[in-house]
Amino acid sequence: MRSRGVWFASRRGSVATPRGGQSASMTDTASTDDRRRMWDASRRAHHLLSGERPLTMTEQLERLTAGSADLDRRGDVYGDGVMRELEERIAAMLGMPDALWLPTGTMAQQIALRCWAERAGTTRVVLHPRHHTLLNEEDAVTALAALTPVFATEEPRYATAEETGAAARGAAAVVFEVPFQDLGYELPPWADFRAAVGAARAADAAVHLDGARLWDAAAVWRRDTAEVAALADSVYLSLYKAPGAMSGAALAGDAELIDRARTWRIRYGGQLFSAWPAVVGALRGLDERVSRVPMWTAHAGVIAGALDDVGMRPLPSAPRPREFFVRAEASAADMNRAVLEVTETTGWRFLHGWWAEEGGGALAEMTTADPALDWTADDVRRVGRLVADRAGGTR
Amino acid sequence: MRSRGVWFASRRGSVATPRGGQSASMTDTASTDDRRRMWDASRRAHHLLSGERPLTMTEQLERLTAGSADLDRRGDVYGDGVMRELEERIAAMLGMPDALWLPTGTMAQQIALRCWAERAGTTRVVLHPRHHTLLNEEDAVTALAALTPVFATEEPRYATAEETGAAARGAAAVVFEVPFQDLGYELPPWADFRAAVGAARAADAAVHLDGARLWDAAAVWRRDTAEVAALADSVYLSLYKAPGAMSGAALAGDAELIDRARTWRIRYGGQLFSAWPAVVGALRGLDERVSRVPMWTAHAGVIAGALDDVGMRPLPSAPRPREFFVRAEASAADMNRAVLEVTETTGWRFLHGWWAEEGGGALAEMTTADPALDWTADDVRRVGRLVADRAGGTR
Repeated sequence: MRSRGVWFASRRGSVATPRGGQSASMTDTASTDDRRRMWDASRRAHHLLSGERPLTMTEQLERLTAGSADLDRRGDVYGDGVMRELEERIAAMLGMPDALWLPTGTMAQQIALRCWAERAGTTRVVLHPRHHTLLNEEDAVTALAALTPVFATEEPRYATAEETGAAARGAAAVVFEVPFQDLGYELPPWADFRAAVGAARAADAAVHLDGARLWDAAAVWRRDTAEVAALADSVYLSLYKAPGAMSGAALAGDAELIDRARTWRIRYGGQLFSAWPAVVGALRGLDERVSRVPMWTAHAGVIAGALDDVGMRPLPSAPRPREFFVRAEASAADMNRAVLEVTETTGWRFLHGWWAEEGGGALAEMTTADPALDWTADDVRRVGRLVADRAGGTR
Repeated sequence: MRSRGVWFASRRGSVATPRGGQSASMTDTASTDDRRRMWDASRRAHHLLSGERPLTMTEQLERLTAGSADLDRRGDVYGDGVMRELEERIAAMLGMPDALWLPTGTMAQQIALRCWAERAGTTRVVLHPRHHTLLNEEDAVTALAALTPVFATEEPRYATAEETGAAARGAAAVVFEVPFQDLGYELPPWADFRAAVGAARAADAAVHLDGARLWDAAAVWRRDTAEVAALADSVYLSLYKAPGAMSGAALAGDAELIDRARTWRIRYGGQLFSAWPAVVGALRGLDERVSRVPMWTAHAGVIAGALDDVGMRPLPSAPRPREFFVRAEASAADMNRAVLEVTETTGWRFLHGWWAEEGGGALAEMTTADPALDWTADDVRRVGRLVADRAGGTR
């Protein structure tokens, strides 16, 4: 799945996302040898602009045991123990009655939509044609979940409140993805978002929030996650993005929804015998990481400005979440080669993982986290020029 | 799901299995307080008859790092790395072209059957009405996988070759579960099994092996797992039973089947961002545990005979896998209370986790593993009499 890119025309031109599942750290243009070199260079690098230093399994275990969770006790069996603790904690955090852990976002969102479809007695759900469920999940939403996608707009942008309301009539649910991954993490203004949600409600459709990056959206809007969740009937959260768990997702909603979802979790094969390493990592992330997202978001603006200074264009423009796309004029192969060599020779790992853009040029995904805080705007410009000189094609 | 028992009339009377998912270590009759007492008593016990000592998360991590797998390297992302290693190893072990890791058996078997249904162009699959997919998975095989179960027999026994052949005509696949969990782990003689498989093949149906406990079956038949797998077109293995991993399953088959299954794994939401703790545990289990199953199986006969001596009836009779059911005349509540008290006072944990049998009496599941090897027949009789005296109702 990761071997083929998904192409679409964005407002600003065509964008290719080579990601499978939720995201991928490597690109199609990198050979196995280059991947190994990048792994080695990233582990030796003293500065990493995007994402985090790759860890061995031993190091991940050390991080897990260094966390705040008390591990000298029973883990989880078929969803009890620490998994139930995490679910209750997420429900409380979002101000929702209940929550359910699930192994993937793919499963979480299908289950949420099937539950709304069951309740409403219709298979119609309003999705954007560029939503993850339609781009990256092998048509599961139709082939497996047997749902009927309805589009409020087919343009590469957020649907307006008017479009949303029209599509929502007779639909079980409307999906709102904030920020919108396939549009380079574009996020609507809070007022526009509220208006679109209001239009869905007025049409009697359930409001489902694709909050894979809910903390990122909340930080841009300067709202608490509970304030954002309060607009929704169901919320999906990814636990391996901002919280940094090994894997996993959560679905929050009212008690009836979560009871139904628990049955569907069994049906989908999502009730694992034991999953506590992912669960404990999520608990640790809620304790220690998600409160840092506003700081990461603030620094994303510094990074974006400096990238722009060296001819690498960040998109979307403000408001900009901590993850955003960057466009360079050089080819993806040249950019990846240049980043690898600069990392190996200087220990500064610049923005990496470039993929080819349709019609030339390259795109990469900037993920602002703790390592990015060590980069000043001057650092970004200096190392960016080194990379651009090596790659050619970018001033 | 674990709160309701599933009842059926076996050859020898009615049997209730209170398990959700694949199995449960606790019974409906135990209060939360009793469960905590049993956890504490089991951890202090110096002899454990069935199953293994419950481990804290810290202890599980220690076991993981003490294993043979080299953890000073990259784990897995979206199915690559150590997960792919495990898949290749399982394929080689079974002598099959390819294999795929999946988070649960529920997902593995639905996917296998859907793939066969796609290939054959029919939704008809031959299952036993007491198969796990129909008893313990919230009707997923129809409600989610959209398959049409066909029964070779509705009796609580293996279907004959003749019955199998008749049902298999026009069906995509026939499922063979060895040993058959809901019949108390009954296993057909090898010749009968081969004859039934041959009848399915003669009817042009694919042969799917539910090998959740394939090692257990192979040990009874005194065959290599590859020799058993050679009879099948697809094999499902559970990785947290004999191999002792934290969770996980595998599906093995030809390259086309596994390619299709890989697509369905994405659709079902089974492509986890990272799952290496479960994967590394499975690799360790293949290295260190599965070769011990024949020894466990041999000792299961010793244990069963001694249980019979104190009026607790093992079923099925020989050939008996290392897991088998045991029936007592006392109530489940009395048996569980007696086992708990004897464990607390003597440090010998007798067969535990009894559940109520329809019409009186109790059943429990004996799992013979390393701790059982420390019990002689005399030990079983001596502690069994202590328990029976306390529980009453059993001589």
